[in-house]
Amino acid sequence: MRDVAVIGVGMQKWGELWETSARDIFVESALLAMDDAGVDTLDAMYVGCMTPGLFAAQEHLGSVMADYLGQGGIPATRVESACASGGLAFRSAYLAVASGMHDVVLAGGVEKMTDISGGEATFALATAADMQWEGVSGVTFPGLYAMMAVAHMDRYGTTREQLAAVAVKNHRNGSRNPRAQFPMEITAEAVINSVKVADPLNILDCSPITDGAAAVIVVPADMVGRAGKPGVKVTGSGHATDTIALHDRDDFASMRAVAQSAERAYAMAGRTAKDIDFAEVHDCFTIAEIIVSEDLGLVEKGKGGPAAEAGETALDGRIPINPSGGLKSKGHPVGATGIAQVVEITEQLRGEAGPRQVKDARIGLAQNMGGSGGSSLVHILEAM
Amino acid sequence: MRDVAVIGVGMQKWGELWETSARDIFVESALLAMDDAGVDTLDAMYVGCMTPGLFAAQEHLGSVMADYLGQGGIPATRVESACASGGLAFRSAYLAVASGMHDVVLAGGVEKMTDISGGEATFALATAADMQWEGVSGVTFPGLYAMMAVAHMDRYGTTREQLAAVAVKNHRNGSRNPRAQFPMEITAEAVINSVKVADPLNILDCSPITDGAAAVIVVPADMVGRAGKPGVKVTGSGHATDTIALHDRDDFASMRAVAQSAERAYAMAGRTAKDIDFAEVHDCFTIAEIIVSEDLGLVEKGKGGPAAEAGETALDGRIPINPSGGLKSKGHPVGATGIAQVVEITEQLRGEAGPRQVKDARIGLAQNMGGSGGSSLVHILEAM
Repeated sequence: MRDVAVIGVGMQKWGELWETSARDIFVESALLAMDDAGVDTLDAMYVGCMTPGLFAAQEHLGSVMADYLGQGGIPATRVESACASGGLAFRSAYLAVASGMHDVVLAGGVEKMTDISGGEATFALATAADMQWEGVSGVTFPGLYAMMAVAHMDRYGTTREQLAAVAVKNHRNGSRNPRAQFPMEITAEAVINSVKVADPLNILDCSPITDGAAAVIVVPADMVGRAGKPGVKVTGSGHATDTIALHDRDDFASMRAVAQSAERAYAMAGRTAKDIDFAEVHDCFTIAEIIVSEDLGLVEKGKGGPAAEAGETALDGRIPINPSGGLKSKGHPVGATGIAQVVEITEQLRGEAGPRQVKDARIGLAQNMGGSGGSSLVHILEAM
Repeated sequence: MRDVAVIGVGMQKWGELWETSARDIFVESALLAMDDAGVDTLDAMYVGCMTPGLFAAQEHLGSVMADYLGQGGIPATRVESACASGGLAFRSAYLAVASGMHDVVLAGGVEKMTDISGGEATFALATAADMQWEGVSGVTFPGLYAMMAVAHMDRYGTTREQLAAVAVKNHRNGSRNPRAQFPMEITAEAVINSVKVADPLNILDCSPITDGAAAVIVVPADMVGRAGKPGVKVTGSGHATDTIALHDRDDFASMRAVAQSAERAYAMAGRTAKDIDFAEVHDCFTIAEIIVSEDLGLVEKGKGGPAAEAGETALDGRIPINPSGGLKSKGHPVGATGIAQVVEITEQLRGEAGPRQVKDARIGLAQNMGGSGGSSLVHILEAM
């Protein structure tokens, strides 16, 4: 298979975008990415979106987005893996280029979540869980991740303060990201005293409901240089699934799909966790970042909480995690999140991240997951 | 890229399956395909499904289906292109194998459509159209295809009787297919006198609401022979999009995405329409089969109606179309349809189609489309 590189990225400010539709926010990001890459036609497109049917009463997104982007005719594929739909779109685009099938491919993600009520949105998101066995009992995602948090606290002594440290760190990073939905710093006290959602998780442990899109352009690595920007090479891609239901797992304090997808990506890239300079990970809840950073091997198992508290994962720490602000501060339009991670890593590797630039960033890792870890995608990107 | 072959197919009887869930009907077909192929583990899986969120309140189907199939851990990807989701799953699996990324890949499709009311199902299906411009006016698919029928009748003199001939022919074929939802013969009079849905289309011009699944196993062509069955090689794959809205097209009596996807598949296979022995095409409405058979080049433009009426597309005709009974008689669980086409073509090329066997079948074509032609997939399969 051919080497593949990212040559363009696009993303606008995320938030509650009541004045624009899903297709408009997608097209805005896609045009920015095409402009950044210096391309005006695409050979194919992949769109990551979790549930446009429930959120926006519109399916057939490949056709919709290719048409509205002025690229009607090209093969356009929508992929879905719940909140990992963006990561899956990136992997699919990677494969389309690596295989030799297509040259200039757009991978985009989008979700328009605020056109329905909060209760309806919670239901729509719950369809990422096992609706036949989990949904029927009324459990939604804060409840599932709260059970993981309780298990992790019990097993490893993770504390309420350590959970809060993740949110504080991500908001500090997000305050330097002009595209973040909630670009303000918060204190540990604010997190700990915020309203309870599902014990031990409070509202400030949870990522928000967001409208947003993001897009990147991938091409054969030998095309890099076209637009005069530094290239970013995709060296590893790992994808794994796990039981859809949390209750079918041996362990609530670890996510097998995360470890397995990482193992596959590391093997492909010829890298280990020690080689990674920084990572964008799926902090849909504070506990998720702690578990994921352990399962990726970036911190020792059970030490994710202390690492966050000690500043090891801060922007200037040993292994910066979520320099973008993560899902927590930047927002979490579910289908777009995995692509936004690649946008951030690309900008970091190009040295374009401004006030949130990670020092000496050469190798970045993106981890995006669906549900309570029923699927996970890991990508490794390296400066060329 | 490597040559790719189908080595196993699985499908059960379609219909109103009120006793089983989407995951169960998917797993049943997947197990049949794995058994047929003689494999018990998969390297990856692609699931085609249009809108499980609206039909069955369950997304994250890659994880759900891999888990329930006992293959948890493998990369499992759901793809969507409205009613062409099955064809897109097949193309995605083809690419995964052709690229060298994976060896044994399952492509499956599923839709569970009868767990909601008919009105809700009509709404769910309408999300394949442009909900922002078409849906808002209240138009649904029978209305869109009725407009195409009127244009085709006006332009080419296609008659009400010719539309009926398509339904009569497909039910005759379907009466020989034990897995068809409506395996009974019908008369032209019955079609013409059936209740009006959207002038000139009557209820017997329309494909039904169906629960069903289908699955196939694809592998590198050099693995064929493993299970002792004749291999079926995938020689062409074409995918195209068009405007999502019908009103944005230059021509209502033709579908550009169908012609373009066919052109791409023919070019890859080194074949022309003249080489095709038989085809499974997307007859969601009788007029659709007429237009598609023309746009594929299987009959002359404007002559699809007369060809059906004269028996040219019958099982023993010049170019048999929809030997399986098509969407009309076999049923149309939207995400499964494109895979079921490949099941039929494989069985025909293996000489296993029994009373509906096409004589001297060596090269078959599958055409699956989304919406009013906003996307189309064409595959060419050949006996090895």
